[in-house]
Amino acid sequence: MSDLQKRGRGQAAAAERPAMREALVAAAFRLFGERGFEQTTVDDIVTLAGVGRRSFFRHFPSKEDVVFPDHEGGLAAMTAYLADADDAGDPVEQVCDATRLVLRTYAANPAFSVQRYRLTRQVPGLRAYELSVVWRYERALADHLRARFAVRSDGALRADVIAAAVVAAHNHALRTWLRSGGEGDVEEAVDSALGYAAKTFGDGPGPAQAPVREEEVVVVVARRGTPMWRVVQGVESALEA
Amino acid sequence: MSDLQKRGRGQAAAAERPAMREALVAAAFRLFGERGFEQTTVDDIVTLAGVGRRSFFRHFPSKEDVVFPDHEGGLAAMTAYLADADDAGDPVEQVCDATRLVLRTYAANPAFSVQRYRLTRQVPGLRAYELSVVWRYERALADHLRARFAVRSDGALRADVIAAAVVAAHNHALRTWLRSGGEGDVEEAVDSALGYAAKTFGDGPGPAQAPVREEEVVVVVARRGTPMWRVVQGVESALEA
Repeated sequence: MSDLQKRGRGQAAAAERPAMREALVAAAFRLFGERGFEQTTVDDIVTLAGVGRRSFFRHFPSKEDVVFPDHEGGLAAMTAYLADADDAGDPVEQVCDATRLVLRTYAANPAFSVQRYRLTRQVPGLRAYELSVVWRYERALADHLRARFAVRSDGALRADVIAAAVVAAHNHALRTWLRSGGEGDVEEAVDSALGYAAKTFGDGPGPAQAPVREEEVVVVVARRGTPMWRVVQGVESALEA
Repeated sequence: MSDLQKRGRGQAAAAERPAMREALVAAAFRLFGERGFEQTTVDDIVTLAGVGRRSFFRHFPSKEDVVFPDHEGGLAAMTAYLADADDAGDPVEQVCDATRLVLRTYAANPAFSVQRYRLTRQVPGLRAYELSVVWRYERALADHLRARFAVRSDGALRADVIAAAVVAAHNHALRTWLRSGGEGDVEEAVDSALGYAAKTFGDGPGPAQAPVREEEVVVVVARRGTPMWRVVQGVESALEA
């Protein structure tokens, strides 16, 4: 065989992989929908997909993994994005943006996402699997924030709390959308939820979004003992006006 | 058998239960420490504890459950506490207090808590179990906050974010203490971490903690475009002065 032929075959094998992966996922979800997750075996899946057992396990370590085929890729994309993030940027905005990367895999295929959501509600083992996936995302965000907050004495605490809050905001909007059966614009809903988290913890919009007019000042007058949230509300409306 | 004898036996059986439960937990942890979690069977545990297999499963549905013997009780205590909470109180302070109830079970037995922490780091199955336990705590807090925030249009989002942030703050301090081998005052460390979460989301100390002196006012002057956290910092130091 010539080198060219070998290269040709290697390329064909590489191109065939995603197709086989997708065929396995499609076969698995069809069977999960028809008979339930527990009642479907890996043998059933490979028979329907027309491939061998070894092909299945080359793509997925277990039956649970076929339910979350995008998660390893999503985590890798998120980690790479944060590794490249600008040290001068708002770290809270950066972790919000990182969660938007993962959201795209849900938004790209609403029917699949909704079907998986229903499956994870029904099968406790899948719910547990999902919790560990979410925990790994949260750790990736917290690690980024810890590095950025390293100079603060409470940096690690802030990092853990903000990562948890950002993931909770993201998942609140995502779950609401999934429960609705995938109606409406999930990216808009997640933006709005992340906005709440970013406003709570972030430095607010930077100069790029809201040009500073240096000469202007805001004066807030409050009674001592005023609840902090009322003061913040007052300052916010003044600054945003 | 007379009614009195029956009652006597019933009481003895009830009193024997916690002791048997403790004996099973002690035997299990001794064996987990000596041979590892995976290499220990339920049969090994009941043999060492000197009881039958049925006694084990009366107390614990699985080998995983014996690692977290206090969690069902902790969750029940937390739920009962929140159900009784005063509707006029600060809901964020209430969920912080609810997590302190769970903390007591860790603080009451540092050696056991540290041993369990090390075990959950080593066994992925236990880590997954712990994540679902933490998720149930978080849901209990979020449910309380959702009910209290029901009038707000963003109430459910706030509830989910605050519950996640409070659990993350609690667990940050708890994990730091566990990693240190149980050195120092964990309740103090958790108070301080929860204080950060409460300050971020809560209404601040109410009149009972910080009497309002109505005549005093605080004036904050900030340039438009000042990052919100700087403004909050300024307001905080002014109000706390």
